[in-house]
Amino acid sequence: MSDNTTPITADIAANVEAIATRAKKAAQVLATATRATKDAALHALADALIANATPIIAANQHDLERGRTNNMSPGLLDRLALTEDRITQIANSLRDVAALPDPVGEIIRGSRLPNGLRLTQQRTPMGVVGMIYEARPNVTVDAVGLTLKSGNAVILRGGSAAASSNEKIVEILAATLETQGLPADLIQSVDAYGRPGAVALMHARGLVDVLVPRGGADLINTVVREATVPVIETGTGNCHVYIDNTADLEMAINITVNSKTHRVGVCNAAETLLVHRDIATTFLPAAYTALAAQNVTVHTDDASAAFTEGTGVSAVAATEEDWATEYLSADLAVRVVDDLDQAIDHIRTWTSGHTEAIVTSDYAHAERFIAELDSAAIMVNASTRFTDGGQFGLGAEIGISTQKLHARGPMGLPELTTTKWVVRGEGQIRP
Amino acid sequence: MSDNTTPITADIAANVEAIATRAKKAAQVLATATRATKDAALHALADALIANATPIIAANQHDLERGRTNNMSPGLLDRLALTEDRITQIANSLRDVAALPDPVGEIIRGSRLPNGLRLTQQRTPMGVVGMIYEARPNVTVDAVGLTLKSGNAVILRGGSAAASSNEKIVEILAATLETQGLPADLIQSVDAYGRPGAVALMHARGLVDVLVPRGGADLINTVVREATVPVIETGTGNCHVYIDNTADLEMAINITVNSKTHRVGVCNAAETLLVHRDIATTFLPAAYTALAAQNVTVHTDDASAAFTEGTGVSAVAATEEDWATEYLSADLAVRVVDDLDQAIDHIRTWTSGHTEAIVTSDYAHAERFIAELDSAAIMVNASTRFTDGGQFGLGAEIGISTQKLHARGPMGLPELTTTKWVVRGEGQIRP
Repeated sequence: MSDNTTPITADIAANVEAIATRAKKAAQVLATATRATKDAALHALADALIANATPIIAANQHDLERGRTNNMSPGLLDRLALTEDRITQIANSLRDVAALPDPVGEIIRGSRLPNGLRLTQQRTPMGVVGMIYEARPNVTVDAVGLTLKSGNAVILRGGSAAASSNEKIVEILAATLETQGLPADLIQSVDAYGRPGAVALMHARGLVDVLVPRGGADLINTVVREATVPVIETGTGNCHVYIDNTADLEMAINITVNSKTHRVGVCNAAETLLVHRDIATTFLPAAYTALAAQNVTVHTDDASAAFTEGTGVSAVAATEEDWATEYLSADLAVRVVDDLDQAIDHIRTWTSGHTEAIVTSDYAHAERFIAELDSAAIMVNASTRFTDGGQFGLGAEIGISTQKLHARGPMGLPELTTTKWVVRGEGQIRP
Repeated sequence: MSDNTTPITADIAANVEAIATRAKKAAQVLATATRATKDAALHALADALIANATPIIAANQHDLERGRTNNMSPGLLDRLALTEDRITQIANSLRDVAALPDPVGEIIRGSRLPNGLRLTQQRTPMGVVGMIYEARPNVTVDAVGLTLKSGNAVILRGGSAAASSNEKIVEILAATLETQGLPADLIQSVDAYGRPGAVALMHARGLVDVLVPRGGADLINTVVREATVPVIETGTGNCHVYIDNTADLEMAINITVNSKTHRVGVCNAAETLLVHRDIATTFLPAAYTALAAQNVTVHTDDASAAFTEGTGVSAVAATEEDWATEYLSADLAVRVVDDLDQAIDHIRTWTSGHTEAIVTSDYAHAERFIAELDSAAIMVNASTRFTDGGQFGLGAEIGISTQKLHARGPMGLPELTTTKWVVRGEGQIRP
């Protein structure tokens, strides 16, 4: 990505500032656009992507060739690759966003003051949103759809590995906006300025209203450290499942397996399993057998290691590092705890604040787990995998915030807006 | 304050980290405290301040003596000075906070998902709040009251000019908390570590959940530039009053005078008056006469300068700098504009995004002013002075945010909380 030592020339800073200034002007036009205008534009963008699949795929080929030359891994190459089918999927995601309610103009609260003033607090676009992300061209389109619907201009900084694809996509989308009577400057990129351009974007205070980094921990840490504009951290998930002594055994196994193996590379997958000592003897052998069937490797403390024999699970000894690790793989740390208190203490010590689940039939234990843990989501008798904008019924998801300011947990379109207070009177002054 | 070149020794960083770690532990205790416990503690703190007025005033004398030796201005000395009456006022402000509703536990939204899961999003404390402010000992108590009620631990960094007063106040408040069965570590200060301590606080990522700077533009800019923890900017107010061609003359004069002169040193005071060309001939002479009676100096463009004669107002020629200036004094920039469009354009160019007012009797103009300007508060036919937590009925005010993330405009207790999602199920897993 970029770091403190990346030099920004005055030229690049001025160019990025000019881009952001044009974005701000364009955002002022979009701020008063009706939902009908925005939805029509989203459908036009989707149509344009499908109509231009051939040139987009041609540009994508350049990225793929460069990737192969640079020995990019097969997994990353696959994420980078665009096909007609994938372009149709990406285009359809824009139509899905069009179908969502417009967050702009929503009245959050309001009242009539004693002096007769009518007060409302209503949602209004942020203005200019910066997005810094890695080599997935679909994120380019996602970001455009979400920011357009929420009334914002977007400035993109994609990974250099997807530079040709992104350049072509941005060119097509910006030109299409103009055919819809909207400013092309709503969609711009700083990719031409490389890493210094990204750093200049992070420093564009007063012009960029919020910066959303999407990607791995390194990218996010760099942005948080470097940025002087406000940032929404979308974060890592070191999620826990705690099996209480009163848990239903079958439910406990189902939730453990689903939380760990439904998809292993995602932030809401479980990474550590905590098991109450009193239920370990019955629960752990069955859980290990079920996890072994999904090829999970368990990283066990001494007490939990005692139950692996005969279950077929592959096991390694856990160290403290395992408690802190977000594996993002078919690995699961396992620890036996004395009681709920020790489980809460373990989670408080090691969690990244994403999602924690308890499996229990004890009312008081459930309520204590909810009250005493402070993560973005707390599950009682449900899989950690439910922490998701789609699952929560929020529609599109911009990301899952693990910070406490502004947005926490799954973020939908409203999280890309701010509010303003409107006060209507007939000449009131302060006495 | 502090800047990038302020050296932090490893010792100071470790001490501040230890303070923040203790604060985090203490906050976990407070997070589950009931409103009754918190309100009782707030009243006990108020009682303790009044009971300890003598030692507090004695400590304050040291600050005042040092201030006089350092040629502190009479205005600043007055803000720094504590008397029995002022201590009683400060104590009563804690009782006022006790009377406000508890934001913690409020359900923001909730639903039942198709698979039967019950979803709620509820307010929960931020955790550890840092406050960096200037030499006003009353802010120390304010900060303690607001953070305690919202379930947070606070780490204070007051101005060095009030160091003795703050040390004594923190000592009394922390000791009183313990008598209430709450951890003394809920109220701590890094003042003993000077500027490096403040910088260490700004860098305590993962331990400090939000930092609220309160003070002048220099302090706020330093914190925003330096901090790696999340910051809520409480900001400057370059507020505008626009007199439309259709304005009621008497209302226009009242709102102009009230917005400018009700209190000149505050962020919601008007700093620039924009006047539609068609009403300038009748409005400006009368407005100047009324402003002259309040000893306001006007900084006029050429067109508005033409109407000063015979009004008794003192006038100087405005330069572009005047459009950008937050005077915080009995000065007002004045410009004649051609129409609403030019007024909106002027405000968009120069505003700090705090409060803008229009005086008009034209419905379409009022609605355009609301829709096309993007400031924290928009007033129609009302004084800019209404942008205030108390006036808006929010109860206590932590500050007025001019940023767009998390909170915008007057911030009450809910803005010192974050949310968490709670999901209750009976074994649901992702299919």
